[in-house]
Amino acid sequence: MDFRKINISGKLVPENYLKLAQDAQKCKETEKNELLEKRKLPLNGWTETHIEELVQQLSLLDSNNFPKKSGVGEREARIACSLVARRHYNFGHGIGRSGDLLEAQPKAAGSTLMANLTNALLLDLIHEMGVRSCRSCFLAPLATGMSLLLCLLTLRQQKPAAKYVLWSRIDQKSCFKSIITAGLKPVIVEPQLNDNGSLTTNLQAFEEKVKAIGEENILCFCTTTSCFAPRNSDDIINVAKLAAQYELPHLVNNAYGLQSTYLTHQLEQAQRLGRVDLFVQSTDKNLLVPVGGAIIAGFNEQLVRNVAKAYPGRASSAQTLDVFMTLLSLGRNGYLNLVKERKANFEYLRMRMQEFAVSHGELLLEAKGNPISLAMSLRQFQDANMELTKFGSMLYTRGISGARVVAVGDRRKIEGHEFINWGTHHSATRTAYLTMAAGLGITKAEIDNCFQKLQVSWETFSSQQSEIKKKIKNSN
Amino acid sequence: MDFRKINISGKLVPENYLKLAQDAQKCKETEKNELLEKRKLPLNGWTETHIEELVQQLSLLDSNNFPKKSGVGEREARIACSLVARRHYNFGHGIGRSGDLLEAQPKAAGSTLMANLTNALLLDLIHEMGVRSCRSCFLAPLATGMSLLLCLLTLRQQKPAAKYVLWSRIDQKSCFKSIITAGLKPVIVEPQLNDNGSLTTNLQAFEEKVKAIGEENILCFCTTTSCFAPRNSDDIINVAKLAAQYELPHLVNNAYGLQSTYLTHQLEQAQRLGRVDLFVQSTDKNLLVPVGGAIIAGFNEQLVRNVAKAYPGRASSAQTLDVFMTLLSLGRNGYLNLVKERKANFEYLRMRMQEFAVSHGELLLEAKGNPISLAMSLRQFQDANMELTKFGSMLYTRGISGARVVAVGDRRKIEGHEFINWGTHHSATRTAYLTMAAGLGITKAEIDNCFQKLQVSWETFSSQQSEIKKKIKNSN
Amino acid sequence: MDFRKINISGKLVPENYLKLAQDAQKCKETEKNELLEKRKLPLNGWTETHIEELVQQLSLLDSNNFPKKSGVGEREARIACSLVARRHYNFGHGIGRSGDLLEAQPKAAGSTLMANLTNALLLDLIHEMGVRSCRSCFLAPLATGMSLLLCLLTLRQQKPAAKYVLWSRIDQKSCFKSIITAGLKPVIVEPQLNDNGSLTTNLQAFEEKVKAIGEENILCFCTTTSCFAPRNSDDIINVAKLAAQYELPHLVNNAYGLQSTYLTHQLEQAQRLGRVDLFVQSTDKNLLVPVGGAIIAGFNEQLVRNVAKAYPGRASSAQTLDVFMTLLSLGRNGYLNLVKERKANFEYLRMRMQEFAVSHGELLLEAKGNPISLAMSLRQFQDANMELTKFGSMLYTRGISGARVVAVGDRRKIEGHEFINWGTHHSATRTAYLTMAAGLGITKAEIDNCFQKLQVSWETFSSQQSEIKKKIKNSN
Amino acid sequence: MDFRKINISGKLVPENYLKLAQDAQKCKETEKNELLEKRKLPLNGWTETHIEELVQQLSLLDSNNFPKKSGVGEREARIACSLVARRHYNFGHGIGRSGDLLEAQPKAAGSTLMANLTNALLLDLIHEMGVRSCRSCFLAPLATGMSLLLCLLTLRQQKPAAKYVLWSRIDQKSCFKSIITAGLKPVIVEPQLNDNGSLTTNLQAFEEKVKAIGEENILCFCTTTSCFAPRNSDDIINVAKLAAQYELPHLVNNAYGLQSTYLTHQLEQAQRLGRVDLFVQSTDKNLLVPVGGAIIAGFNEQLVRNVAKAYPGRASSAQTLDVFMTLLSLGRNGYLNLVKERKANFEYLRMRMQEFAVSHGELLLEAKGNPISLAMSLRQFQDANMELTKFGSMLYTRGISGARVVAVGDRRKIEGHEFINWGTHHSATRTAYLTMAAGLGITKAEIDNCFQKLQVSWETFSSQQSEIKKKIKNSN
Repeated sequence: MDFRKINISGKLVPENYLKLAQDAQKCKETEKNELLEKRKLPLNGWTETHIEELVQQLSLLDSNNFPKKSGVGEREARIACSLVARRHYNFGHGIGRSGDLLEAQPKAAGSTLMANLTNALLLDLIHEMGVRSCRSCFLAPLATGMSLLLCLLTLRQQKPAAKYVLWSRIDQKSCFKSIITAGLKPVIVEPQLNDNGSLTTNLQAFEEKVKAIGEENILCFCTTTSCFAPRNSDDIINVAKLAAQYELPHLVNNAYGLQSTYLTHQLEQAQRLGRVDLFVQSTDKNLLVPVGGAIIAGFNEQLVRNVAKAYPGRASSAQTLDVFMTLLSLGRNGYLNLVKERKANFEYLRMRMQEFAVSHGELLLEAKGNPISLAMSLRQFQDANMELTKFGSMLYTRGISGARVVAVGDRRKIEGHEFINWGTHHSATRTAYLTMAAGLGITKAEIDNCFQKLQVSWETFSSQQSEIKKKIKNSN
Repeated sequence: MDFRKINISGKLVPENYLKLAQDAQKCKETEKNELLEKRKLPLNGWTETHIEELVQQLSLLDSNNFPKKSGVGEREARIACSLVARRHYNFGHGIGRSGDLLEAQPKAAGSTLMANLTNALLLDLIHEMGVRSCRSCFLAPLATGMSLLLCLLTLRQQKPAAKYVLWSRIDQKSCFKSIITAGLKPVIVEPQLNDNGSLTTNLQAFEEKVKAIGEENILCFCTTTSCFAPRNSDDIINVAKLAAQYELPHLVNNAYGLQSTYLTHQLEQAQRLGRVDLFVQSTDKNLLVPVGGAIIAGFNEQLVRNVAKAYPGRASSAQTLDVFMTLLSLGRNGYLNLVKERKANFEYLRMRMQEFAVSHGELLLEAKGNPISLAMSLRQFQDANMELTKFGSMLYTRGISGARVVAVGDRRKIEGHEFINWGTHHSATRTAYLTMAAGLGITKAEIDNCFQKLQVSWETFSSQQSEIKKKIKNSN
Repeated sequence: MDFRKINISGKLVPENYLKLAQDAQKCKETEKNELLEKRKLPLNGWTETHIEELVQQLSLLDSNNFPKKSGVGEREARIACSLVARRHYNFGHGIGRSGDLLEAQPKAAGSTLMANLTNALLLDLIHEMGVRSCRSCFLAPLATGMSLLLCLLTLRQQKPAAKYVLWSRIDQKSCFKSIITAGLKPVIVEPQLNDNGSLTTNLQAFEEKVKAIGEENILCFCTTTSCFAPRNSDDIINVAKLAAQYELPHLVNNAYGLQSTYLTHQLEQAQRLGRVDLFVQSTDKNLLVPVGGAIIAGFNEQLVRNVAKAYPGRASSAQTLDVFMTLLSLGRNGYLNLVKERKANFEYLRMRMQEFAVSHGELLLEAKGNPISLAMSLRQFQDANMELTKFGSMLYTRGISGARVVAVGDRRKIEGHEFINWGTHHSATRTAYLTMAAGLGITKAEIDNCFQKLQVSWETFSSQQSEIKKKIKNSN
Repeated sequence: MDFRKINISGKLVPENYLKLAQDAQKCKETEKNELLEKRKLPLNGWTETHIEELVQQLSLLDSNNFPKKSGVGEREARIACSLVARRHYNFGHGIGRSGDLLEAQPKAAGSTLMANLTNALLLDLIHEMGVRSCRSCFLAPLATGMSLLLCLLTLRQQKPAAKYVLWSRIDQKSCFKSIITAGLKPVIVEPQLNDNGSLTTNLQAFEEKVKAIGEENILCFCTTTSCFAPRNSDDIINVAKLAAQYELPHLVNNAYGLQSTYLTHQLEQAQRLGRVDLFVQSTDKNLLVPVGGAIIAGFNEQLVRNVAKAYPGRASSAQTLDVFMTLLSLGRNGYLNLVKERKANFEYLRMRMQEFAVSHGELLLEAKGNPISLAMSLRQFQDANMELTKFGSMLYTRGISGARVVAVGDRRKIEGHEFINWGTHHSATRTAYLTMAAGLGITKAEIDNCFQKLQVSWETFSSQQSEIKKKIKNSN
């Protein structure tokens, strides 16, 4: 607001002080205007105050915040608990309109504006990260699994008779359950187990399955980029070529792949050289917001729009607000810095794990197509296979979070499908191993701390195992 | 914490002052313990401070808030923007675990506890409101439409071959789109148009459709309770009887019906005398939180659990937090008061609308089975049918939000299905009308204000119409 | 900000939605402009959002919040802890300038504006409450005692040789200590003890002291309005007449008197008929903000300004912010409602205490010139005099806060002056009593609750006393 | 709270998850206990969540936050505006008790505890910074000037007849006004002007004044450490020796000196070798909190206590809360880091100013006893003396805040005392100059930015001056 108009004859504050102060604010107004006009990530992050100011101005545009109103509808975005109102900056109406997540909500001009702007910023971010051909994207207030489900249901509307989804095996339930819940039939394509223990996409198997089942019965290919080593990112470029060849839709689960320029370039190439229809990534892992959102993106604007249209009814704007505030607080440079640091920390983690492995008689399992996760063998604990969970919980108890100890031999039946060596992504895996990841936001100090604790845990577990072995020996 | 232990020899504060202060806090500890042990709504609402204290204590139980931790996983619930962290009380991990929304999340003991407790409180609320036989419910971080979709997909897992959903027509897109997006075929059962303009469920048509299509091909019945007058709540008791008779699942869209004891008693009776499998209600309209959540409830614990299991992956805990804080801030008495006030305001709204209708030569369209929404005819504007939207936007511009002016004659094609007189729920409706609702949280002042504005708008619109008619006459 | 300019061709939200939303905001802008132009209390309270918006806009005008700045001074209002920055809405520069609390601070246009506006609103409030002749006032970021000290030091600058302050005895240390700390000599004027136990100003003693000490040696009269019954408000009208007669300054401690129209009218009359120079009231008790501020007001603009000038250096703006937000949140009607409710609750408290006294064989000690506090005798506990503190702490332990049990016989020496029957305001008091007050914000429920607990405590204490008497009797 | 007791049979969350989570919290409890037991600064800063948790727990110990209470007193710490309550974490009672700032407040055990703990932490900080002999200190909710006033009033209680304060001239109004407002007579001791333009304490003049006035008539010496170059810190060691010799109290205005180990060591030495009674420092400049508090410290516990006792009535706890949160957020290491960085930035500023001076034909005015502020001559603008304010405002308009352009020739009369060359601290100053300071929290980027803007301003001003000179020449 222009205080100068009101501060008549300097009654409240000397005019020159006020002029200077208002002039100093101008560059902030400019930044705000630029954001709204260009709809691109700001170069540098904004201050908290600046972000909150814009958010509050937007919130005031929603009808529940109109000063004079009579609400005689069934849904008036009244908020009973003031703590809740406050934490949502008085946004209450959600986004979308019955029957289309991207439709403007007449009662909520502010929410609508924020949602559209956020989607524009996300598209800018995707381009910035290397998927230059991406045409459209939107933030779904659904975690990745549910977002994949929505994609599958949308694809099915175009090909109602096709029941099969060719899915490159990855032992993480969400995506698999998406296929099941969609009422479709997953066809599991086991990856290829290489000599060094790493896993790569079995392209031949993919092609064989297409031929066996028939293109007309296949809804789509479903691949995954980011995953736990020693599984590699799926070879999405070659799968995309197959998809193009057989005219089959290709859905990529890019769960936490947006943070890696390696994976985003794979995506860009896959689309250029073959066919990718939709790719989905979670906001929590790629944008460091609380769990609950995903970015659904694609290379064809209409298809992406169709996914949004398949979403029935309004939806939460909480995820939009989180992402919007986060993008403004980081700015392009802030995000690219996080990306750069993550990459450096990944190299550091690899170096530390390599060292640790060598000094303890184990091997780093090379997975060159995995830029985020690393694995090292646990051969000497192989005998203790069934005891390995203890080692895992030993690490967790000591504050190492996210490291996974993977034993072999676990059989798991999920929705009627049996997975041998569940957790290893392959039925023929023979060596137990430990995986760790360098995800966005990880710090060098965390890695150092982790290996210090790992050392202690290793020693404790080793001596416990020796004890047990001795006892067994003695008792025999 | 026990400050007395630390305040050695009263160095920081005299011991008797401290003792008294700590004693005064005891009843709050007791309340907290009771909440967690009994898992019932507290009788009276808690203060903001008390609520925030518990929420923060829970948040500290999530691993991202552990003081000493090394995160080497792909998902560590790091939060980049401190505004976001703050508004989520540092909750980041969401709820559920890949493949089950109700499974405990090992990294997030606090979130898990809060989610389970919230679900328990919601069940208590449902019982309190009259659906005593309800066995299980959970808060889905999805708005109503998406929640209905999840229910339909779950039901289909049990009866994969059944394609048809018998749906009592209601002209609101969400539910209809849920059926479409689920890949199912809606069978539209038009309600019965009564002489007084009200609409009731066409039971006979339901039965005829069952016979025509065959039970084995029908996935479920889908009915709606809360709706815009002059449509009544579906006669869910008799539909439930039909469902029992034909052994067909019955899904009830109870969108904003939880706030009405009339509708909850209908639900209870429907289940007692017939069959209801699942009923879904939105949290925004029934609990006055921002849009984004729904309560999925049922009379069979396993079925409700199956719906939760069908949700692939983790999900946002934002809705849980909103509902948890709101339930604590209201308490049982606070909620029941809101319910009582709403009922009184509904009667007041009816009285005002009746008066207005009579004094302006119109009729209140009686819909006795609709305890929330009311309609009055707009016969004198009937000629101006196509202009009626102007009247609607006149009301909205003046700050009346949620009133709907419904004209006749709109044909709408949605996903291949044509709806004649879209908006009126019936193809034979002949009179335009105005609807208003007394939703939870409405105030008497709002109603007074509304009729004052309505009066002004009515006069303006009337005279504009007269002008137009005159001009037309003159030009002839 | 004008979003319409930026939302080019409706890219972010349809133009008509945005227009409507921005139009709806206009009345808020109008309110803001009115506030700043007229500098009067708004009629009705503002919403939290509206208040915070204005506060944030003001804060941005302070130089520490300028987007581009290099701070090479010794005081740049940097804030190290973000929690602190947040709770002060990024205000850091305080108010005033070295050597004048009311001077505009060049580095802090926003703080200056807020401080001046707050002072203007306070003046409006004082007028509204009945002190129509008040010419000037300002909020001192000092509690009442320290504010009185500042007034005394200012008065002394004009009459450096005068050492004596004639002070109508009230047994509350702050004001007395102000005189001592100022390096002045208090002359204690004991009030007159009436037959019904109430205390009124001893005008005759005042006049005698003036004659004995000599006007030229007397700095000022110091009287108190609000106080604990059975002491009455000082008869400030007649003291003011004396002050006028002898040309002596008159300082009124109106501690919590601004909330009572009775006391404010006394002030107005005192000034009209005699002389009042300055009157001081605390913000916590009169405006329901945290302890720490006082309003220093007077009938001569220059004198009030001199008090502000006597304040050396800058000062905290925390109190300004609290008062500013509170005044906006209440509005004139909100404040007047609080005043009305307090008055009604005072009558209710009187009625309850009267009833209680009668039914327990005690007396309400009538103090007609005390519109806030009430006292009832504790004659039957008179014997137990020294045990009475136990009764007091019994009440406090049960949650009755602010009730005072006053025994007779306590001698207290403060800074060389002896007070007989300390606590009773008079050396000849003979009856112990209990006082209670109906302060601003008190509720009927609190009073009910209080008498319930009082009843229980009374019974317990009575029977304990009987036990003790019995034992003494037996042991004799 | 112990959730495990309540989570009976793991109903809400699996027991092992909960155990782990509660174990992870233990170290935080330990930190809290240590803080309260040892009353020393924590080694490392706490997280925001941790700080807020403790603050909220303390706030709950105040009676206004007791769940069940009836307030029938005149001061119940009710807070009308929820924004205000929230920003004060529901603290309302302030600190102290009528007549003693350090007395425990029975209604506010939490505030009392926090205040005492904060004072203990501040004492630890003062020790840590090098004033090891400091015996006692407390946070006064008053800015420096007002705190000095309180010290003077306290000293006077012990020596009521002494009227004179020997004050080493420093051209900043606050301290001087403190003396005036206290009703005392300042004796201005002009510093010694050295050849290089720097100013040092005139010890000889001090001694001469003592002899001329007489010890018995002198209340105290008043010196200043931190100040604008080219004035140096007063030679407090030698003034302290004089004070000891003549048995005169010595009050040191250590305004922003706590941040400099050089100045704190001077203080320590002054006390060891001579006499310092009280030293006062502001919290905003030394602790980076908003303006409004000062630390009053001394070497004799009773004297410091007497200052607190001289404060009449309760006081705001806002400053306590700010300082408490800031100290916890920084921890000892955080504070020492700030101190270290400031020192490095001071050296950088000196280097940049030296370079700038040399390259522009000016001189850095060496003031070796000033570790915070620097000055450079403006000889070439000397002619433009009266225009120099334009140069100053040019800098400010460009965002350089805190730089001061000091012209010679300003005469100022303050409270009857005339200051020749006001602003330069000396009546014989001959050269105009520019000062800048490297205060706590300054960044290298700010300095770089500053010199860039200085360069531009210099050029502009120079050419403007040349223009003017030319015109004058031409017009002659």
